[in-house]
Amino acid sequence: MHIAILTFEGFNELDSLIALGVLNRIKKPDWRVSIASPTVRVRSMNGLLLESQTSLREASAADAVIVGSGMRTREVVADGALMAQLQLDPSRQLLAAQCSGTLILAKLGLLDGVPACTDLTTKPWVQEAGIDVLNQPFFARGNVATAGGCLASPYLAAWIIARLEGSGGKRTSLRRPGGRERRLRIACDAQYHAVLETDVGDRLNKFE
Amino acid sequence: MHIAILTFEGFNELDSLIALGVLNRIKKPDWRVSIASPTVRVRSMNGLLLESQTSLREASAADAVIVGSGMRTREVVADGALMAQLQLDPSRQLLAAQCSGTLILAKLGLLDGVPACTDLTTKPWVQEAGIDVLNQPFFARGNVATAGGCLASPYLAAWIIARLEGSGGKRTSLRRPGGRERRLRIACDAQYHAVLETDVGDRLNKFE
Repeated sequence: MHIAILTFEGFNELDSLIALGVLNRIKKPDWRVSIASPTVRVRSMNGLLLESQTSLREASAADAVIVGSGMRTREVVADGALMAQLQLDPSRQLLAAQCSGTLILAKLGLLDGVPACTDLTTKPWVQEAGIDVLNQPFFARGNVATAGGCLASPYLAAWIIARLEGSGGKRTSLRRPGGRERRLRIACDAQYHAVLETDVGDRLNKFE
Repeated sequence: MHIAILTFEGFNELDSLIALGVLNRIKKPDWRVSIASPTVRVRSMNGLLLESQTSLREASAADAVIVGSGMRTREVVADGALMAQLQLDPSRQLLAAQCSGTLILAKLGLLDGVPACTDLTTKPWVQEAGIDVLNQPFFARGNVATAGGCLASPYLAAWIIARLEGSGGKRTSLRRPGGRERRLRIACDAQYHAVLETDVGDRLNKFE
């Protein structure tokens, strides 16, 4: 399984790298998680320089793609050559977008008829692209999921783990903070719906 | 204000980079957050290569230091020359450690008499260094704080913001996921104790 995290110049570290860290908790020989960028090196919104791990072309062939967020997403969607490199298709891969990443999925026509989550800054641009924006941290329908709010990033990662690795009744535990009450679980219910829940039984989200 | 995040070879992305992202939400001209490493470039436990932003020497002079976690912390504490570069002092700076970073503070003699949080793998080594380990995600006393569990990283960042920027009754909002119920607040109560709480009134931690 290859999961690519699209990461552009001016990226938000929380969006790309929380997903990277959480997804890498799955320790299986065929499980690979990569930062995918148009350039060899990419700088974050706060000046952090990191090396990309795969190309947009390889990302387009991944089993799951997370579109990260950043300060310059409107430049990305205005760049026809760059957008043409994103050959994404929910019929053969899981697609997830975080905050302004939702605008990229919207402009690629991949959210048609699917309501979406995003951040407050990006909201009017996503609406302008004809998409209903939900006031909630996470929403998924079929093979497409979106999240809004940087600390919602684990939800996207959890959704991908649940969809790629989950099975009915099987649970994968991801330790949230330290104590008993701070454990985050990914579970699949009897109908194979993935559920994020805490130990205290507080269901955070139920995926469609 | 300079906040340095000590980041060593084999580092855990969640620990160093969530703190970096959350701390950079403070937009003030004198507010600076840096990844500090012994080398110019540093590679994470999952193979992500990034460029360090400051030296250990500059980090030792910072107003606040977060000691990040990683796969090779036992090598760090066994390296006398490296440990000697960490001239940390809670009488002039805030010190925070995440997961195995707690072992570094312990070995530097900076946790004497202070119970601490860490991850389950590091726990026996911290105990061997004579420190009581708490089964909770966050603990602070005076100018020293520790956290255990990767997703406890925002607590350390919030504690630093509250200590460096907080004032009685003043609140700084950090959006947690998207919706109303997922907002994380940093607040200071009437006694200038910093409190992390959610909108639903669930107090996560109260700092000593």
